[in-house]
Amino acid sequence: MNHDHSQNRYDYDVVVIGAGHAGTEAAAAAARLGAKTALLTTNLDTVGQMSCNPAIGGVAKGQIVREVDALGGLMGEAIDATGIQFRMLNRRKGPAMHSPRAQADKKAYQNHIKWQIESQPNLDLRQETVLDLITRPVTDADRSESEHAEFAKQQIVGVRVSGDATYFAKTVILTTGTFLKAIMHTGEAQSAGGRAGEGTTSGISGALNRLGFEVERFKTGTPPRLNARTIDFSKVEEQPGDEDPQPFSFLNDAITTPQLPCHIAHTNDKVHELIRANLSRAPMYSGQIDSRGPRYCPSIEDKVVRFADKSSHQLFLEPEGLQTQEIYVNGISTSLPRDVQDAMFRLIPGLENASIMRYGYAVEYDFCPPTQLWPHLESKSVGGLFLAGQINGTTGYEEAAGQGLIAGLNAARSVAGKSPWVPSRQDAYLGVLVDDLVTAGTDEPYRMFTSRAEYRLLLRQDNADRRLTPYADELGLIDSKRRTRFAEKLEQIKRGRELLKQGRIEGAPAEVYLRRPEVTWETICAAVPELNSIDGESAQQCCVDIKYAGYIDRQQMEVDKQVRLSEKRIPVSFDYERIPTLRNEAREKFARVRPLSLAQAKRISGITPADIALVLAYLGK
Amino acid sequence: MNHDHSQNRYDYDVVVIGAGHAGTEAAAAAARLGAKTALLTTNLDTVGQMSCNPAIGGVAKGQIVREVDALGGLMGEAIDATGIQFRMLNRRKGPAMHSPRAQADKKAYQNHIKWQIESQPNLDLRQETVLDLITRPVTDADRSESEHAEFAKQQIVGVRVSGDATYFAKTVILTTGTFLKAIMHTGEAQSAGGRAGEGTTSGISGALNRLGFEVERFKTGTPPRLNARTIDFSKVEEQPGDEDPQPFSFLNDAITTPQLPCHIAHTNDKVHELIRANLSRAPMYSGQIDSRGPRYCPSIEDKVVRFADKSSHQLFLEPEGLQTQEIYVNGISTSLPRDVQDAMFRLIPGLENASIMRYGYAVEYDFCPPTQLWPHLESKSVGGLFLAGQINGTTGYEEAAGQGLIAGLNAARSVAGKSPWVPSRQDAYLGVLVDDLVTAGTDEPYRMFTSRAEYRLLLRQDNADRRLTPYADELGLIDSKRRTRFAEKLEQIKRGRELLKQGRIEGAPAEVYLRRPEVTWETICAAVPELNSIDGESAQQCCVDIKYAGYIDRQQMEVDKQVRLSEKRIPVSFDYERIPTLRNEAREKFARVRPLSLAQAKRISGITPADIALVLAYLGK
Ligand SMILES: Cc1cc2nc3c(=O)[nH]c(=O)nc-3n(C[C@H](O)[C@H](O)[C@H](O)COP(=O)(O)OP(=O)(O)OC[C@H]3O[C@@H](n4cnc5c(N)ncnc54)[C@H](O)[C@@H]3O)c2cc1C
Ligand SMILES: Cc1cc2nc3c(=O)[nH]c(=O)nc-3n(C[C@H](O)[C@H](O)[C@H](O)COP(=O)(O)OP(=O)(O)OC[C@H]3O[C@@H](n4cnc5c(N)ncnc54)[C@H](O)[C@@H]3O)c2cc1C
Repeated sequence: MNHDHSQNRYDYDVVVIGAGHAGTEAAAAAARLGAKTALLTTNLDTVGQMSCNPAIGGVAKGQIVREVDALGGLMGEAIDATGIQFRMLNRRKGPAMHSPRAQADKKAYQNHIKWQIESQPNLDLRQETVLDLITRPVTDADRSESEHAEFAKQQIVGVRVSGDATYFAKTVILTTGTFLKAIMHTGEAQSAGGRAGEGTTSGISGALNRLGFEVERFKTGTPPRLNARTIDFSKVEEQPGDEDPQPFSFLNDAITTPQLPCHIAHTNDKVHELIRANLSRAPMYSGQIDSRGPRYCPSIEDKVVRFADKSSHQLFLEPEGLQTQEIYVNGISTSLPRDVQDAMFRLIPGLENASIMRYGYAVEYDFCPPTQLWPHLESKSVGGLFLAGQINGTTGYEEAAGQGLIAGLNAARSVAGKSPWVPSRQDAYLGVLVDDLVTAGTDEPYRMFTSRAEYRLLLRQDNADRRLTPYADELGLIDSKRRTRFAEKLEQIKRGRELLKQGRIEGAPAEVYLRRPEVTWETICAAVPELNSIDGESAQQCCVDIKYAGYIDRQQMEVDKQVRLSEKRIPVSFDYERIPTLRNEAREKFARVRPLSLAQAKRISGITPADIALVLAYLGK
Repeated sequence: MNHDHSQNRYDYDVVVIGAGHAGTEAAAAAARLGAKTALLTTNLDTVGQMSCNPAIGGVAKGQIVREVDALGGLMGEAIDATGIQFRMLNRRKGPAMHSPRAQADKKAYQNHIKWQIESQPNLDLRQETVLDLITRPVTDADRSESEHAEFAKQQIVGVRVSGDATYFAKTVILTTGTFLKAIMHTGEAQSAGGRAGEGTTSGISGALNRLGFEVERFKTGTPPRLNARTIDFSKVEEQPGDEDPQPFSFLNDAITTPQLPCHIAHTNDKVHELIRANLSRAPMYSGQIDSRGPRYCPSIEDKVVRFADKSSHQLFLEPEGLQTQEIYVNGISTSLPRDVQDAMFRLIPGLENASIMRYGYAVEYDFCPPTQLWPHLESKSVGGLFLAGQINGTTGYEEAAGQGLIAGLNAARSVAGKSPWVPSRQDAYLGVLVDDLVTAGTDEPYRMFTSRAEYRLLLRQDNADRRLTPYADELGLIDSKRRTRFAEKLEQIKRGRELLKQGRIEGAPAEVYLRRPEVTWETICAAVPELNSIDGESAQQCCVDIKYAGYIDRQQMEVDKQVRLSEKRIPVSFDYERIPTLRNEAREKFARVRPLSLAQAKRISGITPADIALVLAYLGK
């Protein structure tokens, strides 16, 4: 490396590369903890940009947004300020399944995130393209400072950017999303780039190779965008939002932005026939792409093949904003050639004359299998280097944001000489997320599902603050506004619970009456009027606590058992060679994953109870 | 060229390449005239983007915006909807100098332009990167259709875009701004790209070379952007906007958006010393750049050198929008190295702790000397290919927009088999602009000044509609809303003039009294109360017409003389070889510029009255 212009150097505690969903949360979290932070991104006009669908939340993802917010993150407030249609999904199911989702005014969302970042003290947002990572060999001094350094070969020193300048930093967080060695496909046509109209990032891929990172390839796709002016809305079904839109952020009482309806169109046999006839021209079927994509979020060509008996699929026509005619067609992600994309719409009622503004495409990109990371998202081989977001093999804005927050928080803690903090699987979906990633890795783009959480009755969207805000306060992630608001809410819940104990209905305590499935809060309030003074969110907490007490208690017991297992910590430097009777496969897996507790060890795929018993036996020695 | 996938072809009347200020006006004008139009641009998220300062208008430029609006263009309505500070410059001077200017909310402006484009019938806005221009040899049939084809060697057929697709079109308008073979410089560091964070366009440069276009290089620069959070506003001077902001568009009565103040900071001797000490590292002084930049819009290093005796320069701190902390520092455009940019601000009161979000840089790019075009902006050598905007060697959003409108209008007329229309120098600044460009070319980036117009007392911002809207109506550029509004205004002016004739003040007609310099409209209204019913804009027209009648009449007489000269048309195919006594220099220049009238011929530099007399003599033969 050549540092001619030593003037062009900057010094930071934390440098974050990439201002997508992971990078913005990472930088904001680090700065909130007082670390001197720089957020470097190729183009300041794409900060917080939604590469694909104009929506935040959804099943299990909405829960993550609530958790990010409970930890003082950006995403919840941004979507509340710029959402144009809010819906609580799965309202008919139990509270563990309730999942908030909102359509965003895409540009407004992005501007809002940028503004939050610009306004954050300790944080410098700068337009820079990072070309290389700078490291040095790990020293004994590093090892004495952190037990994690034991396994690192290199220590991060900073990054080199375009324009002959260098940022020196104690920690670096890499959040470059789909931009590493990215190739876009539409039919037979290919071009380099991580997002249509933008470039790719090759320097960082080179650095990762040089540093010995394992790198694999995934792919993801995006649907065409249509001009609303060319859609016949009389031929499609209207889908309104909720009448009482619920905010994502625990700081907000209500949504005040104007709300828009979405619309639903439908594919049909003719469309499916057309797709089948052109399958050989789809990159995923022609063999042009062989990396794996997100199974649960299939392209239209995948759907036609995998669900061959279905004669119609829903297409959601989602406006990209209040002041644009661009319509995102959710449900028709595709990399079929342009002529097939054009022809498909000709066959769909309402879209016969639709004009495509951007064609759908698939993008193939490098990611780093996340088993190379500690749970706090620091690299095992390069000390001080954190990875977060899509670069870890995940997909989705929410998963990226959650990882960003955890990486940013821990980078700042590392700078301050503090030990890592990550929520556990029983605390948060975020705990499930990082534990899944670092323990099991992923062989397809990872997205969150409620089924991934063992204790999902505890990990509800409604109680994310009760689960996480106390930690956030202890960690220093939140300000006094959030602290006060949260304390008031706990106070209200306590008062509600007392009133429910004292109040009587039909001779029994109101609490007992409320347990009946058909009894609502309103009924109880009529009998115990003091309850009317409890605010809506706190009332909801009282209801859920009481109505689901049985299930919750049972799950809590399991958790307690689990915690005992988690408390059996395995030292970072535990030497598996010491256990001669350990199976080779188990020894290899343990040495690679380096589980930090018996509970994590147990979750490694292929590990047997006998393996665990052996480790437990040797732990004491 | 290889057209494997013949499915990927589209057919249009007019294809516009690039959705900057020129391209958006071009496409909208063509579509308004009923041409089936496609606007192709690399990234739909940068439609109408302001590459540099967040402002529209200014001296002579504001007049152009009013003209573009009078012709049914987009710019006036867009800035009215999104302006955050309006000021009428030169208010103290005569009405010919009054020049409207407004700061824009940059992102909102861009979104507004995109939305206007998306909403325009006959116009398809599509994200596409154009790689090549497709032409064929000119045929006799072409020649029989247009006298201009006489000089063309090739005829445009369409364009090839990334993703193996082809757009066929009868006319193509090239408006790629600073993106041709662009190189950005900050100090010693260079990188490829037409705008920071974006790429460059090489395919089109290749096509222009192949087609025999002359290509030269210019450069332009942009200042650093600061984070408002890091500026000490107590140490800088506030500059408020006008109390009664005047709209740019003749369709609007008032500005309703919230208004912001700007601020003024000052450089000082220490800053100038620092710059002088580092001049050898500025690309323009080190010899790294040798192309010419805009003289009237100098970089801070230029100012320090050229105005060596000045000990301070003003810096305008202009907010880039309502919801961003980015501040554009007008007056400190620079390509000095990063460390010097950082150090400069350390020395400026109020900016000592300012954090740079984007560094200043200069960009060098290819442009096509515009003498290769007819006045209606069609290429002389490639029939059906139009060029507009910065690619013609101009600078400024307004100059680009004006050219775009003229190119779009004429491309659509050409498709409809109609002859070109351009405003004359006596009609509009737009006439001055295209005439200057095609007659004289330019040896530095061309911007408009009031001094370029011989008849600037006629070409006022206040009467742009009276000058141009009647043409626009005849051309089919405007809708009934504008037509009705304009007719009502003319009616009001007529009534005002009559009332002024009839009304008496101190025994004389009110009209005569109004001529006195100190007498205002309000004074007259007090005496002739019926005048109160005349709206403000119409009243202003009555005042100017009467107060400046002497000057205006004199200028009109000159114009009439000029028109007689302009009416002496020179046929496109006039053979200068027929005049044996013509000087060789004159013959060459005439043959290259191919002036379309004696007036234009006279304006060619180096042409003498004797040359003109000879041409005149032969014209009759
Ligand atoms: C075409 C496409 C389709 C998708 N489809 C879906 C979908 O259907 N469902 C879904 O859930 N998710 C989808 N995603 C994924 C979703 O966009 C990502 O999960 C999310 O944006 C990841 O956030 P991130 O912060 O990790 O990366 P990104 O949001 O991609 O941000 C990366 C940032 O890094 C910057 N950067 C890159 N290189 C450099 C460099 N060298 N120096 C400085 N900055 C750099 C980029 O400019 C960008 O700002 C899709 C993404 C794409 C591109
Ligand atoms: C760094 C910088 C500093 C400047 N400073 C000043 C200044 O101080 N004062 C001033 O008056 N003016 C300044 N300008 C000039 C001003 O930005 C331009 O005059 C104006 O933007 C020109 O408009 P345009 O439409 O010609 O081009 P642009 O606004 O540049 O638009 C060109 C469009 O073409 C698109 N494009 C490029 N290649 C392709 C392709 N192959 N296929 C499809 N689309 C393509 C681009 O994406 C872009 O949308 C500056 C410009 C830059 C870049």
